[in-house]
Amino acid sequence: MALIAADHPCTVAGVFTTNRVKAAPVVLDIRRIARGISRGIIINSGNANACTGRRGLDDAKKMCRATEKALGAKGGEVLVASTGVIGVPLPMDRIIPSVPRLVDELSPSGWLDAAEAIMTTDAFPKIASGRVDVDGTRVSLLGIAKGAGMICPNMATMLAFFVTDASVGHTVLNRALGEAVDASFNRITVDDATSTNDSVFVFANGLSGAPRISAGSSGYRAFTGLLKELSTELAHMIVRDGEGATKFLEIEVLGAATRADAERAVRAVSGSLLVKTAFFGEDPNWGRIIVALGTSGAVFNPDRVEVTLNGVKVMSGGVDTGKEKEAKRAIRKRDVKVRIELNAGRRSSRLWTTDLSHDYVRLNSAYRT
Amino acid sequence: MALIAADHPCTVAGVFTTNRVKAAPVVLDIRRIARGISRGIIINSGNANACTGRRGLDDAKKMCRATEKALGAKGGEVLVASTGVIGVPLPMDRIIPSVPRLVDELSPSGWLDAAEAIMTTDAFPKIASGRVDVDGTRVSLLGIAKGAGMICPNMATMLAFFVTDASVGHTVLNRALGEAVDASFNRITVDDATSTNDSVFVFANGLSGAPRISAGSSGYRAFTGLLKELSTELAHMIVRDGEGATKFLEIEVLGAATRADAERAVRAVSGSLLVKTAFFGEDPNWGRIIVALGTSGAVFNPDRVEVTLNGVKVMSGGVDTGKEKEAKRAIRKRDVKVRIELNAGRRSSRLWTTDLSHDYVRLNSAYRT
Repeated sequence: MALIAADHPCTVAGVFTTNRVKAAPVVLDIRRIARGISRGIIINSGNANACTGRRGLDDAKKMCRATEKALGAKGGEVLVASTGVIGVPLPMDRIIPSVPRLVDELSPSGWLDAAEAIMTTDAFPKIASGRVDVDGTRVSLLGIAKGAGMICPNMATMLAFFVTDASVGHTVLNRALGEAVDASFNRITVDDATSTNDSVFVFANGLSGAPRISAGSSGYRAFTGLLKELSTELAHMIVRDGEGATKFLEIEVLGAATRADAERAVRAVSGSLLVKTAFFGEDPNWGRIIVALGTSGAVFNPDRVEVTLNGVKVMSGGVDTGKEKEAKRAIRKRDVKVRIELNAGRRSSRLWTTDLSHDYVRLNSAYRT
Repeated sequence: MALIAADHPCTVAGVFTTNRVKAAPVVLDIRRIARGISRGIIINSGNANACTGRRGLDDAKKMCRATEKALGAKGGEVLVASTGVIGVPLPMDRIIPSVPRLVDELSPSGWLDAAEAIMTTDAFPKIASGRVDVDGTRVSLLGIAKGAGMICPNMATMLAFFVTDASVGHTVLNRALGEAVDASFNRITVDDATSTNDSVFVFANGLSGAPRISAGSSGYRAFTGLLKELSTELAHMIVRDGEGATKFLEIEVLGAATRADAERAVRAVSGSLLVKTAFFGEDPNWGRIIVALGTSGAVFNPDRVEVTLNGVKVMSGGVDTGKEKEAKRAIRKRDVKVRIELNAGRRSSRLWTTDLSHDYVRLNSAYRT
């Protein structure tokens, strides 16, 4: 368990899973966050409190209430996040008694401990921080995250929590967070699964003394830029920690006719089992990329497509370029950039994902035994 | 290589891949089949003749021309199918000289040989046959197929060829084939990939002496029923031969609000890596099924969903039923039926697929080394 708390109410914003099936803590947080004010969030790992019915919602509320009481906060001021197994009620007899201890152990330097506490199948804790100038005053931003698969071995979820001393209202903070998440956590995939618990939060306490950030100002751009940067760092860490991953793949589609086409194309390629297994085998197999593009729904002329792997053009004008050996050498790296030029327009899109290895199958078939 | 040929022109119908990227033989066949008449089809395995540009189309035509010549058929009367590696030109110097030998070796009892000749990574030849009464006369129908993954280790494709002595016009034959394919080959998936070469053909020579089959007649229903039955047999063989498959999964969604919702839901579950790896591990993990349903786009109330695995209800009213042990025993079989009741309407859909095993990753990452 982990607790993130502030001495005084903060502005808060959140982005939540688009899965129709939402875990109890997500249902509760969506209601509470509309007020825009929070004292903090209590987090447990190991149990997602998802598909737990009426009891699950009651348990989430009880976690908040116990934390509010221990912090001396008002009713409704604390949020909750859970990650872990789906369909099992929370062990409330162990959770509630541990809340006062969490409050006692709160520390301004406890971030790494918190990042470790929220891990499930993660191989390493994920933390990122930075500073930026807002109208002449330095503001700080720090984030922690967990995730090693959109869904780990039934240990559903990616969670991320940001805190900042910037001064920013709920609406503006929401907008900044939405922009940052779109450019980062929404651009990664390990296994194309969106969990019932995915949540990203940002808490702003305003203690930097910097002027209040207004929408569209230079301060907004600076703050949102840093939030995007840190979100992208954490998102990349999640992909690098992807279950069984041996490769970090950047898939980029250029020259699409529409934004939707670019998105369809990049998602089809990054979701293809055949593309992912080919990269695990270090095979510069552009045929599988073309097959995925062709079923994506994106409009393009196959005879105008170009595919480049780590700088080596393997397909051009719809046919092979005869550079297989060179390409094979080029992709013998942890990081592989796949660049697909559709030559059908001016829209582009980019995603980060992993290969598909033996270990992915092992982790996802053998757990819980 | 294989050759299927008739002494006299047959009625012919075909269904082809929906992939935007179509192999040269598919492009050629789509044009030729519009005439509705054919003497036969020449088939090669090992090379898909896909993404081979202008040369690929010329090569496909040359294969047809050489076969027409050897058979004494008219120009345009022969079709062609290819399956294998993408992006490599056909070895025409070996293909063309072997055509006369294929004609010499034609035999009415050569079907098993043909089924073996078109295999790529298939573990076994796929053949199915049956008879049915059309207006008092027996007609025969026989089919062969290949496929062991929608795409095998770059050995793209599922192909199927049916022959019958029924008498039936092009339009009616096309309709019967469309119905049969929708109920069979379009209801299976191994890795959610649709190849550049997928094709299904039916040739009808009319030699049974049965009256010509007209649309909507009892003869049509009988003939189409048999075509559906044999297509389903062959489609199931493809799934059972799926790369690395240890399970044959039937996924059924019931109680969807619309036909589209039923389809989305069944495709999301059967395409989920997490569901497929769970079944490989014989884990009755309904949480992963719910996660896939929740991202499918289908409209339903999570609290009303029921999930049954081989007859054991593991989730009901949106929560666990406490029957995990029983379910674990029930799915320790090669065949697993997954029944999902959404309780949101009256539409249903069903698909057949495989689990995802170590061998799938091995086959698809290690080939071509």
